[in-house]
Amino acid sequence: MKISAIVTMLLSVVLLSSCSFKKQEIETSDPIDAKVAALLSSMTLEEKIGQMTQITVTALEQDGKPGVLDKNKLKKAIHKYKIGSILNVPNPGAPSPERWNEVLNEILEETNQTDKKIPIIYGIDAIHGASYTAGAVLFPQQIGMAATWDSELVKKCTAISAYETRASSIPWVFSPDLDLPRNPAWSRLWESFGEDTYLSSQMGVAMVEGFQGDDIGESDKVAACIKHYIGYGSTTTGKDRTPSIIPERILRQYDLPIYEKSIEADAKSIMISSGEINGVPVHASKKIINDLLKEELGFKGFVVTDWQDIIYLHTRHKIASTMREAVKKSVLAGIDMSMVPDNYTFFEDLLSLVNDGEVPMSRIDDAVSRILRVKYELDLFRTPVTDPKDYPDFGSSSSIAMSYIAASESITLLKNTDKTLPISKESKVLITGPTANSMKYLNGGWSYTWQGEKSDQYAKDKFTILEAFQSKIGKQNVEYAPGVSIFEEIDIAKSVSLAKNVDYIVLCLGEHNYTETPGDINDLLITEPQVKLAKALMDLNKPIILVLNEGRPRIISQFEKGMDAVLQCYLPGNEGSRALVDIVYGDVNPSGKLPYNYPRYANSLQKYNRKYTESLGDEEQNDDADYQKSYSPQYEFGHGLSYTTFGYKNLNFDKVFIKKGDAINVTVEVQNTGTRTGKEVVQLYIKDLYASITPEVKTLKRFKKIELQPGENKKVSFTIDTDDLKFVNEDNKWVVEYGEFEIIIGNLNKKFALEKEL
Amino acid sequence: MKISAIVTMLLSVVLLSSCSFKKQEIETSDPIDAKVAALLSSMTLEEKIGQMTQITVTALEQDGKPGVLDKNKLKKAIHKYKIGSILNVPNPGAPSPERWNEVLNEILEETNQTDKKIPIIYGIDAIHGASYTAGAVLFPQQIGMAATWDSELVKKCTAISAYETRASSIPWVFSPDLDLPRNPAWSRLWESFGEDTYLSSQMGVAMVEGFQGDDIGESDKVAACIKHYIGYGSTTTGKDRTPSIIPERILRQYDLPIYEKSIEADAKSIMISSGEINGVPVHASKKIINDLLKEELGFKGFVVTDWQDIIYLHTRHKIASTMREAVKKSVLAGIDMSMVPDNYTFFEDLLSLVNDGEVPMSRIDDAVSRILRVKYELDLFRTPVTDPKDYPDFGSSSSIAMSYIAASESITLLKNTDKTLPISKESKVLITGPTANSMKYLNGGWSYTWQGEKSDQYAKDKFTILEAFQSKIGKQNVEYAPGVSIFEEIDIAKSVSLAKNVDYIVLCLGEHNYTETPGDINDLLITEPQVKLAKALMDLNKPIILVLNEGRPRIISQFEKGMDAVLQCYLPGNEGSRALVDIVYGDVNPSGKLPYNYPRYANSLQKYNRKYTESLGDEEQNDDADYQKSYSPQYEFGHGLSYTTFGYKNLNFDKVFIKKGDAINVTVEVQNTGTRTGKEVVQLYIKDLYASITPEVKTLKRFKKIELQPGENKKVSFTIDTDDLKFVNEDNKWVVEYGEFEIIIGNLNKKFALEKEL
Repeated sequence: MKISAIVTMLLSVVLLSSCSFKKQEIETSDPIDAKVAALLSSMTLEEKIGQMTQITVTALEQDGKPGVLDKNKLKKAIHKYKIGSILNVPNPGAPSPERWNEVLNEILEETNQTDKKIPIIYGIDAIHGASYTAGAVLFPQQIGMAATWDSELVKKCTAISAYETRASSIPWVFSPDLDLPRNPAWSRLWESFGEDTYLSSQMGVAMVEGFQGDDIGESDKVAACIKHYIGYGSTTTGKDRTPSIIPERILRQYDLPIYEKSIEADAKSIMISSGEINGVPVHASKKIINDLLKEELGFKGFVVTDWQDIIYLHTRHKIASTMREAVKKSVLAGIDMSMVPDNYTFFEDLLSLVNDGEVPMSRIDDAVSRILRVKYELDLFRTPVTDPKDYPDFGSSSSIAMSYIAASESITLLKNTDKTLPISKESKVLITGPTANSMKYLNGGWSYTWQGEKSDQYAKDKFTILEAFQSKIGKQNVEYAPGVSIFEEIDIAKSVSLAKNVDYIVLCLGEHNYTETPGDINDLLITEPQVKLAKALMDLNKPIILVLNEGRPRIISQFEKGMDAVLQCYLPGNEGSRALVDIVYGDVNPSGKLPYNYPRYANSLQKYNRKYTESLGDEEQNDDADYQKSYSPQYEFGHGLSYTTFGYKNLNFDKVFIKKGDAINVTVEVQNTGTRTGKEVVQLYIKDLYASITPEVKTLKRFKKIELQPGENKKVSFTIDTDDLKFVNEDNKWVVEYGEFEIIIGNLNKKFALEKEL
Repeated sequence: MKISAIVTMLLSVVLLSSCSFKKQEIETSDPIDAKVAALLSSMTLEEKIGQMTQITVTALEQDGKPGVLDKNKLKKAIHKYKIGSILNVPNPGAPSPERWNEVLNEILEETNQTDKKIPIIYGIDAIHGASYTAGAVLFPQQIGMAATWDSELVKKCTAISAYETRASSIPWVFSPDLDLPRNPAWSRLWESFGEDTYLSSQMGVAMVEGFQGDDIGESDKVAACIKHYIGYGSTTTGKDRTPSIIPERILRQYDLPIYEKSIEADAKSIMISSGEINGVPVHASKKIINDLLKEELGFKGFVVTDWQDIIYLHTRHKIASTMREAVKKSVLAGIDMSMVPDNYTFFEDLLSLVNDGEVPMSRIDDAVSRILRVKYELDLFRTPVTDPKDYPDFGSSSSIAMSYIAASESITLLKNTDKTLPISKESKVLITGPTANSMKYLNGGWSYTWQGEKSDQYAKDKFTILEAFQSKIGKQNVEYAPGVSIFEEIDIAKSVSLAKNVDYIVLCLGEHNYTETPGDINDLLITEPQVKLAKALMDLNKPIILVLNEGRPRIISQFEKGMDAVLQCYLPGNEGSRALVDIVYGDVNPSGKLPYNYPRYANSLQKYNRKYTESLGDEEQNDDADYQKSYSPQYEFGHGLSYTTFGYKNLNFDKVFIKKGDAINVTVEVQNTGTRTGKEVVQLYIKDLYASITPEVKTLKRFKKIELQPGENKKVSFTIDTDDLKFVNEDNKWVVEYGEFEIIIGNLNKKFALEKEL
């Protein structure tokens, strides 16, 4: 190398430095960044570390007086530890907006007595509406929202959640959940958008936009917290918070894009997975937090831990032999805020680590700047607490109507033998099964309380399924007996006996309310008492309408053949039973589509976008001998019936040979070939015929929900470009490879080719 | 950079080249390498590609005359396509040694008419004895061999397999199986050594040494083929030949060491996994075959595909859009021989690829050299076919006795409530259940035929379980009714009725014979008719001895509480029933130990060496709410009862502080505290208290099987060094980290510390 080359090299270094300096200048010219910089420069180390500290509100309550704040504890938190954030709900759960206002004001009084008066950022698990506020509108849980396949609807509903959360003086929600569940037994599957990356990423963006709008400083917007970055939904055994095994290639192709899309949509914060990936707890992974999230993806928001997760690095994951080491590893990995949640060792340890030079001040400044920026953006310095009086639409009938619409659009008709549904309002029905008469099974966990066990108390004015039927067709036409609870037999004989005098049996099965580890199961089969009830009723040869209220697809193959109709409600929220009943009686035409494969067997858990080696009907796979089918879900991803029928024709492309960078305009005609108005989700899948990474049988790339009158015909168009053909190759890079592809819409398919550049 | 630096650089290149040249020279000084080089230099391209081509013998049979070779087909294979290898068994399966000799001689006649007279290398799936030769001794399948926890015994049995295979003129076996199964539903779990890396690696070496001895040129030795490199046993869904997801860190820590040990033991060939890892079929992975196996591990043997797997790259995996591309990818990845198995497109395509310069001649020469070297080492040029007369010990009583011993040492007493076992020979027993009266359930697949369906015909002189009981205690004391078959009810009432008149019920449950995709299952529960039979018998309140004959642990938790004793036989081979009966009557004291966790529930499939986050009884995990136990296998890895009891005391180390490179001498005293002579497997586990990769709850590092007379006390010693503390870190490197460790033996444990170097 000659001198001139060395000079060039040095010059590049200089140029690079000046570039990044220039960039910093530009950023600082942002008025919020200027405010952050000014405030930061005036802060003591203790004040900075306080900003990074988040405490649960219940740790600030008086001993023996749950729900009442302890002034001394609060003072200690605010003045001694200078905490920057509080989360969670005061005991006994779900305050009214007015009570929230009181609590937040009580906290504000203390922060106002501090030197810098930096407002607390209060965070809450408002995951399906302002679900910790009494009287708020509770929507279907995320899995149901995904089943609507309508991202505009999801965005509108989320905007109501934002409004009602801000009405409760809370500016920050731990939502949406962007996990990609790989084992359907996982107890938080229902908090996700299901098994597909594209559907999840579209829905995630809809929620982020719904929460945040264009400006989170608006009084009806909140900061979103996308979670649980990353790989949390992928535990091998399906048990919550157990290890995930995800090679980087897989992580980049399937998990990361969901986060990327929400980050592009400017999600303001992110919560880290409590799990480990390939042996490294994510809370301690510099590669995943600092390098991938902050540097590669350029995430500008702040990073918060999940519950107690720095402590767990020491006590549960055992990758840190002391608490101090756990704090050091996680902060150096890129954690900005610790959900502590109820002591101050994080504060003390981090203070000592910075004082001893083990954690650089630059890392602290980065963390605190990110947090302060969101506080400014939320306009918390000017409006730290809202006034419920400014929120007249809290719990309004129009908001309730949106929840009803979301439930109507999500409920999925999985089976309808001989048009069993809809049924006549004149017929007599037996309502039976454990989920028939409680709001708990409609709302699930994270409803008023963590496990959602108090839904009947907080939502007592809402209809259970039984009540909705009674309201719809009159009590005189409705018989009821639970038959069994989720876990125990009650009186199956009574259900059987009542069934003899009715025209239809509405069998309401499903799951109890749960989330996280309390929802862990060892067997995906629906519980034994429910199987018994179903089998006993089948023997009567009366039409049975199976109604499922469940967070995850519990196996029903032992009795599914005896069910004439099957309606998957997921966890449809407070208006779910009304939507269900309107579907049963035909006042609403169902249009939900499954966002996951519903498995038929406990040890046959393939995804819809399986590889050819997992596929049914591949003669190569079948040529050796007879064996049980490799791929035969009970119901497939994307499936969902209507009371009308739809026909697809004229799948056309504007070109069938393309080059890199080109787009194809795809059109297809969809016709309502039945006699009722109905909605159809037009789903576009791509199949890569050959690729250097084994291709999937099909992959969802676009969808559009449309409504058609009887006989109506609509031309639907999609634009596909070569980015849609990309996948992550063996070297962990996104690539597109030339060759043939197929587009599949409905029962139609057509090939095109990406040609090699010459 | 100055001129001198450039000169230095160039010099290094030169030096490196001369080094590798020198190395080549040294290697060539090996007489076999010289022969290989000389022969290779005289060969045409067609002759070379022929060496790389393996054809199934059934493709050379006459149309309409199965089992009879077609001269024309043989001539075409040998003279036109110059094939180097044949595999498989002529129809209708399992020839005698004499018939094998005839077939091999018929093939030899043709090769002798070729220019170079290069002998065929004939390969066979002799996985538990010479299992494709009529009259050969069939041993327990591999999973049972692992359950003996006696690698010397395994080596001795394998030496008999080698002898009897060579007696059949076959010099090459596709064994041992070094797969590490991660999903117990996998249909080939029984062909592996179970779920632990250390146990599998020890057993793998024992088999390689048993097959190969010191010199595979000896007339009683064969070349081993370790398989299925790599990750084959790890399919996510448990279905055979479906995708595996294994990050490199995990692969290196758990899967690769098993192969490394057998490669160090000089295994002569290796078979590639039919599956994909992270989207890349192993047959097309240059990283896994060439870079990792050949370059990094320095494997010197040859690499053979599995059945039709180059074709499947095109038709099943779809990573090659033509057959020709599939051949190119796999040969460039490092494949040396293609198990074609029944046409010549591989030959034609490879010929064309080399002629067109798409595959370099150096790659062909590497492949052929590796194959020829093994042919020379096997001494096939001088003794291409053996004479059965030279093998007087074929099927000898001493060999049969070894199979009986292996079965006796493998059968595992999982449960023995109130010392139900052993029972008196005077008592009356009912033998019932589907596996009670057929050799198929003792031998499983790869026995005489692929699926093992003809064991009753070929092993008709061997005892089924029923026959072994009748022989042991006389027909008058034995009642029999099958009750059910594996998949259907026969007459449960008869079993129940017969049970009323006996003292003990011996309930023989398990699985049908299978391997590969025909063994795929959708549910790990034992089949429904068997559950029904078990439950019907439980109601009688008679003591029930459950005998399991199964390739994988089928879930029995629905009725396990009603079983008084449980004996896991695995697939114990032709002498298994005699061993079983001798255990039932106390003539043999059981000493097998489970080589896997026996799951209790279908969706709770944790391994014994789980992480703390998966562990039971971790109060950190349990502090939030009640939920189903995360970890509670039906029976745990390493478990197995005896008719005597053992006590452990005085666990001692010669030091408790060590530095890198140090060894610890660990001693423990084991006493037979019961009244019978018995064998105990002393198992040494290490627990790493904290590590940068989340540590396992415990990891097996040593074991020793010892025999103790009643009251006898033995001091057992183990040497542990710092290599035993290593794990693969986030950067895929083996590292050892200072800190505290614990050694666990029996109910004892003791800590030591690896100290930081100053």
